[in-house]
Amino acid sequence: MRAHELPHITADILARLRARAPRVHCITNSVAQTFTANTLLAAGAIPSMTLSAGEIGAFVSRADALLVNLGTFDEERRAATAAALDVVGERRTPWVLDPVFIDRSEPRAEYAKSLVAQNPDAIRLNGAEFTALGGAEPDDAALTRFALDTLAVVALTGTVDRIADGAQLVSIENGHPLMARVTAMGCAASALVAAFLAIESDACTATAAALLAFGVAGGVAGERASGPGSFPAALLDALYALDKHTLGEKARVT
Amino acid sequence: MRAHELPHITADILARLRARAPRVHCITNSVAQTFTANTLLAAGAIPSMTLSAGEIGAFVSRADALLVNLGTFDEERRAATAAALDVVGERRTPWVLDPVFIDRSEPRAEYAKSLVAQNPDAIRLNGAEFTALGGAEPDDAALTRFALDTLAVVALTGTVDRIADGAQLVSIENGHPLMARVTAMGCAASALVAAFLAIESDACTATAAALLAFGVAGGVAGERASGPGSFPAALLDALYALDKHTLGEKARVT
Amino acid sequence: MRAHELPHITADILARLRARAPRVHCITNSVAQTFTANTLLAAGAIPSMTLSAGEIGAFVSRADALLVNLGTFDEERRAATAAALDVVGERRTPWVLDPVFIDRSEPRAEYAKSLVAQNPDAIRLNGAEFTALGGAEPDDAALTRFALDTLAVVALTGTVDRIADGAQLVSIENGHPLMARVTAMGCAASALVAAFLAIESDACTATAAALLAFGVAGGVAGERASGPGSFPAALLDALYALDKHTLGEKARVT
Repeated sequence: MRAHELPHITADILARLRARAPRVHCITNSVAQTFTANTLLAAGAIPSMTLSAGEIGAFVSRADALLVNLGTFDEERRAATAAALDVVGERRTPWVLDPVFIDRSEPRAEYAKSLVAQNPDAIRLNGAEFTALGGAEPDDAALTRFALDTLAVVALTGTVDRIADGAQLVSIENGHPLMARVTAMGCAASALVAAFLAIESDACTATAAALLAFGVAGGVAGERASGPGSFPAALLDALYALDKHTLGEKARVT
Repeated sequence: MRAHELPHITADILARLRARAPRVHCITNSVAQTFTANTLLAAGAIPSMTLSAGEIGAFVSRADALLVNLGTFDEERRAATAAALDVVGERRTPWVLDPVFIDRSEPRAEYAKSLVAQNPDAIRLNGAEFTALGGAEPDDAALTRFALDTLAVVALTGTVDRIADGAQLVSIENGHPLMARVTAMGCAASALVAAFLAIESDACTATAAALLAFGVAGGVAGERASGPGSFPAALLDALYALDKHTLGEKARVT
Repeated sequence: MRAHELPHITADILARLRARAPRVHCITNSVAQTFTANTLLAAGAIPSMTLSAGEIGAFVSRADALLVNLGTFDEERRAATAAALDVVGERRTPWVLDPVFIDRSEPRAEYAKSLVAQNPDAIRLNGAEFTALGGAEPDDAALTRFALDTLAVVALTGTVDRIADGAQLVSIENGHPLMARVTAMGCAASALVAAFLAIESDACTATAAALLAFGVAGGVAGERASGPGSFPAALLDALYALDKHTLGEKARVT
């Protein structure tokens, strides 16, 4: 895709998502579950969050995309991930890895590396997490190399979001500083990437479009909210109402 | 009860609930816990949510009602449910079953059937869940038959809520379309049914009144909210302030 | 500290907290996790919430303070607490105990007593919890004696918050009645005490300052909110914006 086309493409994916209501199964941390579910619902997707080993296969086999988020990881989530990735591998369901806080715990970083080897379609993470996973500072060359090595779209989020798939590199300067003062923002963005992957087969386009939608909604929320407390509700309201006009007007993509 | 009396009865139960502050123990899914607790508190009840096998007996024996919600069900919740139902059976504490997503997982549907055999006072569910549990499309005849078979009040929620106890069938057309775009709405409604059962001994009246209160609060919230993000807070504000006047004015019961 | 100095001291600690962004690891209940994380972020701290035995040591060893909250306590949280307290003991990291609902469950009360013996810097609790832990009605003499016995700062919250360290006793009459109608308020206040302990070495000052900040933010929120639904967001907005002027104007400390 070309950068100037992304707002238009994002509006198109969002319209298809609202029409098809894809199911997104989320293995995610206990802090982020509610906001993640509400982000998916606001965008038009249907979340499920079950972790139990006896049931997760049934849920994932009926899902259109999977999120694996490593926050508050534990034995139950580890077993759930193994079972879910078996189903996803067989059915070629798209999936996203969000390696939360792997810079804080070496065992978690090692585990994240083993998941990268199982071919996620996209990996969303911040700078410290990229360094723990990719072994380098997150500059453009390192992102591109990592994307080429892993065959995953790499989405580094922060003040500027950068999305790389080895062939192209997209930068998005939307979002809002309050997003760093509310929990689960990155986790919810990763879930939205999964929902977009359920709709759009070009993984780089889907990932960039999801982060643009989330970033523009975050920018709108930042104008309306009175602080970090009122920000999450404002973001969901903006995401629910997001349209071609707002995307075209607000998007800052290069 | 007669349909036109329900708003008045609901206001009366709500007044008693606010005066007595019943304790409602909730075995519920991790996504819905916070909103469920806040719904109970906004209505005037006192929630508790402990699941551990060593403690749940103590909590349930001091509770005035119990909710068993099957979302994100796992071994811990299964053991908690067994222990809780032992106490509830001995003490004749009213309890509500919310068989979340049993249409997605056969083992969960089988488990739900085993719980129905343990005599819940009310079962709240949606159409797909009713079909998985009752083996039929959720028409009036099937609801009535299921209520007669199980001796439970059956509460089917959706665009129209229908409550059946075998002898009568109440329809409530309140609520708001945004309730389908926010997680945990049905779960919280089930918890409110449990709180009303703690106060009102006629289970059908209690169930219908709880769903009317929740639906009217949802309708008020829909007028005030800017989207699904601001909706849950608006619903809790409306539930907290709900009075005889608003119930009488807004209720659509037949 | 003297009572009239507390607003000024609180503003100073808050400024240092915002500059240093301390890490606070939280072993807390599943109902309170999200609001607790957002409270810490709104104040300027960085929360983490991992419980798994294999990782909690790494998280706590990099944290500046620890919270142990006994809500929804289970085997995973018990093992996490043991591992976390080992690290905290070695590194002399400050920690806070919040013995939620120990008045409802004797095994939990016994466990809380064993934790008190491991020297928390502060214990935050309500009246019923104090009686279960301290064996007496929570009057000033009992609070002081308990603080002397345990060498912990005791912070009893309610309509009036009272903080005792054996030598002094501070009373704070801020907050708002809606705080009793929203879940996780006490839990979040305890987390804020942990964040303040990471910044201020005098434990009694840190505890009183944290509760003053939370109480003033709650009072501001009570003026702005439309009910218990909109209250939590308003509290976080107020905490984020809290400054010397508002603290000086609103504080009611004796």
